[in-house]
Amino acid sequence: MNDHLPRLQQLIQQLQQLPYLASKNVYRVAHHILGYSDDQLKRLTQAVELAHQHTVKCTVCYAWREREQLCYWCMTPRRMQNIVCVVESWHDLCAIERAGGYTGAYHVLGGVLSPLDGIGPEDLAIMPLIERVRSGSVEECILAMNQTLEGEATITFVTRALQPYRNTVRLSCLSRGIPVGSPLDMLDKLTVGKAIAERRPL
Amino acid sequence: MNDHLPRLQQLIQQLQQLPYLASKNVYRVAHHILGYSDDQLKRLTQAVELAHQHTVKCTVCYAWREREQLCYWCMTPRRMQNIVCVVESWHDLCAIERAGGYTGAYHVLGGVLSPLDGIGPEDLAIMPLIERVRSGSVEECILAMNQTLEGEATITFVTRALQPYRNTVRLSCLSRGIPVGSPLDMLDKLTVGKAIAERRPL
Repeated sequence: MNDHLPRLQQLIQQLQQLPYLASKNVYRVAHHILGYSDDQLKRLTQAVELAHQHTVKCTVCYAWREREQLCYWCMTPRRMQNIVCVVESWHDLCAIERAGGYTGAYHVLGGVLSPLDGIGPEDLAIMPLIERVRSGSVEECILAMNQTLEGEATITFVTRALQPYRNTVRLSCLSRGIPVGSPLDMLDKLTVGKAIAERRPL
Repeated sequence: MNDHLPRLQQLIQQLQQLPYLASKNVYRVAHHILGYSDDQLKRLTQAVELAHQHTVKCTVCYAWREREQLCYWCMTPRRMQNIVCVVESWHDLCAIERAGGYTGAYHVLGGVLSPLDGIGPEDLAIMPLIERVRSGSVEECILAMNQTLEGEATITFVTRALQPYRNTVRLSCLSRGIPVGSPLDMLDKLTVGKAIAERRPL
């Protein structure tokens, strides 16, 4: 459609590869970027380049850290290293951090088991997690994967893999139930069912 | 929250300025970009820079064109220059092009009148439109603004501004009614009401 605008078309193709940007909004974002001043554009491209260049994965917990610095979650004395929250992704880690209150360490798997997509245990940071538990300093693992088929399967797999260390490490998962502020009659029946089945004594 | 990741924070701040990217998805897009190979990253930043550098607004119709080329919509012999479709934005132009079938020219206003946001006629390409009509080659103006309060107000304003040239130029607007494939009972009452009031003889 925009053959007469090859460079704009290139930009649109690049934007189309970004996740979570609806295909019709790609045109709006491209238009927005074209309207930037040279200064604004420099800030955008520099931010992309600098972040890409200086951010690496921590070799212990696989969260992002800056190349020149130690990993915040592994090295800050304030974070308890004996509790490890296992999450699927960095953005799930961010969600838990936004909630506040959790002061332990993390382990970012980098995804979930998904045979249909060809993602097996060797594609995730599961071996490093087992190694971390085996080395002995971890007292509790919170398996905070999402409640999807793949997330639940990953919880089951990790639980089995950690079976040999159950005498030294406690395993737990996130509580399931009614979200704060949700009216019962607006929720799906699976959530309501689980909230009743896993009810808490008062 | 990510004070220990200043460069990643910078990237997130830049992404937050892009429109139509939900605030929670900003973290996912940042994570996606950090996972790029050096090659992929170069393609992204180059596309942004090249598009920004080489794309300018046409001085006639205010659509995007490449600096080195003539404006496709103004200069292609295939596009009839005596019919001008007036749109709010470049992405509305793209929507009409995607629909196919329209072979006239365009005029991109660059927004709509919105006194509350401080956007007046002088902030839009309304004077150039009047000039274009006054110069005499335009036989029809399709006012294709959106059906918002501001869009309708802009149609009214442009209609009044073009009043002196009504003997040489026809004005029209897009037809309003039931969208293709929409069941009546799922539509808002304004749309159904308009479709009845502006019914078409068979």
